[in-house]
Amino acid sequence: MPTRVAFIGLGVMGLPMAGHLHAAGHQVTVHTRTKSKASALTSKGIAYADTPALAAAKADVVFICVTDTPDVEAVVLGPDGVLKSARKGMIIVDHSTISPSATQKMSATLREKGVHFLDAPVSGGDVGARNATLAIMVGGDKEAFEQVEPLLRHMGKTITHCGPSGAGQLTKLVNQILVSVTNLATCEALTFARKNGLDLEKTIEAVAGGAAGSWQLQNLGPRMSKGDFRPGFMIDLQQKDLRLVLQSAEEQKISLPAASLVHQLFSAAQASGHGRDGTQALFLVLEKLANLH
Amino acid sequence: MPTRVAFIGLGVMGLPMAGHLHAAGHQVTVHTRTKSKASALTSKGIAYADTPALAAAKADVVFICVTDTPDVEAVVLGPDGVLKSARKGMIIVDHSTISPSATQKMSATLREKGVHFLDAPVSGGDVGARNATLAIMVGGDKEAFEQVEPLLRHMGKTITHCGPSGAGQLTKLVNQILVSVTNLATCEALTFARKNGLDLEKTIEAVAGGAAGSWQLQNLGPRMSKGDFRPGFMIDLQQKDLRLVLQSAEEQKISLPAASLVHQLFSAAQASGHGRDGTQALFLVLEKLANLH
Repeated sequence: MPTRVAFIGLGVMGLPMAGHLHAAGHQVTVHTRTKSKASALTSKGIAYADTPALAAAKADVVFICVTDTPDVEAVVLGPDGVLKSARKGMIIVDHSTISPSATQKMSATLREKGVHFLDAPVSGGDVGARNATLAIMVGGDKEAFEQVEPLLRHMGKTITHCGPSGAGQLTKLVNQILVSVTNLATCEALTFARKNGLDLEKTIEAVAGGAAGSWQLQNLGPRMSKGDFRPGFMIDLQQKDLRLVLQSAEEQKISLPAASLVHQLFSAAQASGHGRDGTQALFLVLEKLANLH
Repeated sequence: MPTRVAFIGLGVMGLPMAGHLHAAGHQVTVHTRTKSKASALTSKGIAYADTPALAAAKADVVFICVTDTPDVEAVVLGPDGVLKSARKGMIIVDHSTISPSATQKMSATLREKGVHFLDAPVSGGDVGARNATLAIMVGGDKEAFEQVEPLLRHMGKTITHCGPSGAGQLTKLVNQILVSVTNLATCEALTFARKNGLDLEKTIEAVAGGAAGSWQLQNLGPRMSKGDFRPGFMIDLQQKDLRLVLQSAEEQKISLPAASLVHQLFSAAQASGHGRDGTQALFLVLEKLANLH
């Protein structure tokens, strides 16, 4: 049965995700700040609304995929926000990666109006969004999750209900701690190898199959070795996510020495103009510290 | 064709490795500091020699598997060391994890006697030693490597010639940087998860399949979650290897901020009496910092 959905935010992630919902036969209305970005969808007959409130007016499920906490707050609570069109039973699914505590506050505000707010950040990057193979980590009301799960299956492969409101964002931040510190492990190991004159490709091959193995080593290691720093995931966005990690850790008094360290080292990468390069450009910072260039 | 081999050092690794060479039909003489450790082998008809020199006297290939740099130096260069029985064409294969620069010095000393010294540290732990599935990282003369490669195949699965003398040890240290920093990534991520009330098993499942995935997360994460700190690889030994990493890095002027950090945090684990626990007991340090116990 087709569902009336709204999709707000048509960046590199949102655009293909909204397209998948349309392709699956659902009735999609989109909104995005830069209207021209919607043309690839409106040309397929998808409706465009001028504000989040108007997009949500005729939708039972509202998807949001924007960048940071203030962006989601503006889309939901702003003067032309989704809240203006909120009706009992509406479900909002937020695919952005934002603050868990801000998520919990918004969820509480919306619950008073009978609206469910599910946090549902994703991982898998633009490739995962295009191929509908994203991992989607969901927090919030279990029944509301079960209602939208068939819709999520059009966009992702590993769909997990992680717990109450905020649990999806917290799980995404766990993911970002792992991703960024394992990336640093790879950078330090390959810098040590290079300064000692080892062949990087051969070194990766010798160790990647055992206890040293990781997605980061296997996928980003060869790019570091070849000097390919094109973005899979951009350092500027990784820094935004690490900021969320460290803010959340501070709120809960959790000491994360390595996650803090990698945040500082990414700052050095940004200082050298690598903010829009892929996270593997962290390798250049370690190489520079070893005076390799 | 059976080869006459000596095997010196019958710890948790050396004992099964020597056994595999015997089982493959080679003529094995063993030596170890504590003679009683050899009984499982001598009962199978393997010869025991009272000193490394005597063990090496009738061998064409001498394997060494002891703990640290001074131990190998004593076995090779000591008063009853292998060097006493050194003959042109003899090959020494050192499976211990020791200093790359000390390895290069010993290799040069032995080369003057016409003896090849190959560094060949292993990874894969006691399970890998018993099942003959070790990764063996070899440095030194390529032709000597090719001569002993068939023997190494009785003990390991991934056999890599990494480069000249020391390259095996350097590759092993690369492995240890990766293993220990990825372990810290796992500890910080799961501490963040636990303090925020997430279900650890579910969290691991939600993220392990993507860019956050690693051997450490997949294998040690569930043990951290269950509080199983029995040793796969002991913290005391990890610390010895990290000391080699940091010494070697200092010699070459390589800055390794995360490897240094994890060395310091393992010290805290040792201070709390966890030196003989598995490396996953690092989790307890992070939990303590977050006041979780």
